[in-house]
Amino acid sequence: MTGWLCIAGLGPGDEHLITPEVSAALAAATDVVGYIPYVARIAPRDGLTLHPSDNRVELDRARAALTMAAEGHKVVVVSSGDPGVFAMAAAVFEALERQPAWQALDIRVLPGITAMLAAAAKAGAPLGHDFCAINLSDNLKPAALIEARVRAAAGADFAMAFYNPRSASRSETFGRILEVLRQQCGPERLVIFARAVSTPEEAIHTVALRDATPEMADMRTVVIVGNAATRRVGRFVYTPRSALPAAPP
Amino acid sequence: MTGWLCIAGLGPGDEHLITPEVSAALAAATDVVGYIPYVARIAPRDGLTLHPSDNRVELDRARAALTMAAEGHKVVVVSSGDPGVFAMAAAVFEALERQPAWQALDIRVLPGITAMLAAAAKAGAPLGHDFCAINLSDNLKPAALIEARVRAAAGADFAMAFYNPRSASRSETFGRILEVLRQQCGPERLVIFARAVSTPEEAIHTVALRDATPEMADMRTVVIVGNAATRRVGRFVYTPRSALPAAPP
Repeated sequence: MTGWLCIAGLGPGDEHLITPEVSAALAAATDVVGYIPYVARIAPRDGLTLHPSDNRVELDRARAALTMAAEGHKVVVVSSGDPGVFAMAAAVFEALERQPAWQALDIRVLPGITAMLAAAAKAGAPLGHDFCAINLSDNLKPAALIEARVRAAAGADFAMAFYNPRSASRSETFGRILEVLRQQCGPERLVIFARAVSTPEEAIHTVALRDATPEMADMRTVVIVGNAATRRVGRFVYTPRSALPAAPP
Repeated sequence: MTGWLCIAGLGPGDEHLITPEVSAALAAATDVVGYIPYVARIAPRDGLTLHPSDNRVELDRARAALTMAAEGHKVVVVSSGDPGVFAMAAAVFEALERQPAWQALDIRVLPGITAMLAAAAKAGAPLGHDFCAINLSDNLKPAALIEARVRAAAGADFAMAFYNPRSASRSETFGRILEVLRQQCGPERLVIFARAVSTPEEAIHTVALRDATPEMADMRTVVIVGNAATRRVGRFVYTPRSALPAAPP
């Protein structure tokens, strides 16, 4: 039996947002590896072993998956959203870098609908012009670097999507970022808090930066900050395609 | 008959990257509207009228789609990739802004796999850390703003994805951007040219910035520039999750 490893994105939650490519890989797999709530999304079946593991053990999980693939298993590592955006793909390549013998394995990354795109679609089109994606978790980078990137992005008038804005263990980073944004973007800038997009717990709220508080976000929230031109139209929020003044209607 | 409008992303090309949500909307539609090569991806069937239109008429196309939905048609506006990323969603909201009577319509945006995520997945995980998406087309914004954003992003060590890097009518912008990048990022920085990802014409090349030339890109190419830590591992390119020095193996 020839083993393989797919690092697959399950999208934000709704089964209808899982690509057929990912569904086919899951149907062919012998083993599914991932963080507990993502593995819980996979239906059990004969011939499939589920390997849920806790958060913050990404490198161990990647090694375990690569070991099984090297032994001939057909392994899918599952991430929420897209595996290449603040998710498992980078961890697998880190493990691969430390163990060159695994580099000959059949390894593929299968893209998925990442949270910011699902959130943007529900809100309208807030990422319709140039934008940045920034992980606000300071597990793996200093808070000063996060702040410097937010300043650079706001200074160049990018729209921004923030992943992992807030957890119990670091309640201050996001509050500080909101302060920086208020200084640079002014109180009227629109901010979208999109929680648990495409799940039964979905909640999407748009507020002016003046009214944004850290408590509006948790680890299931993606936060989108518009650029200077982002505005409401009816129940939607969108960023026009043009950085030039609007043409007359 | 109650009309509706979906603005749907067809992904980068491969049918297996179209979400079931988008397939269901297409199956229920009476009309499909979009740029000629994207509408050509939709199989004709009884009861479905295809409305292909040329490039650079996005606002006219959006108005036509909204008019049909207001008349009771079930309309899908198709974009390649994700409709919210340099595609049709923003154009539809621009049209909606100019015609408030349409704002009561049933309108939904259905996300798709955008080119940079499909390209990143094929290459490995080059967007595994904070990144920006920048449209290099200067149809709708001044070249100076594009350059300022690239400088800001490079200065804050974001990875970058460039959409629409080059067309026959503007061969100079991208050459200038490569020059700016060489100044700011040095000659060793990795650049991925991903053309026609997930189609039979797919071609993905990774080079050092020193060897990157404008001719390596066309309008079907998405270009990904790594951050300072982006590196090769075997046949892959990835950006580690950590901005901190690597832990010992």
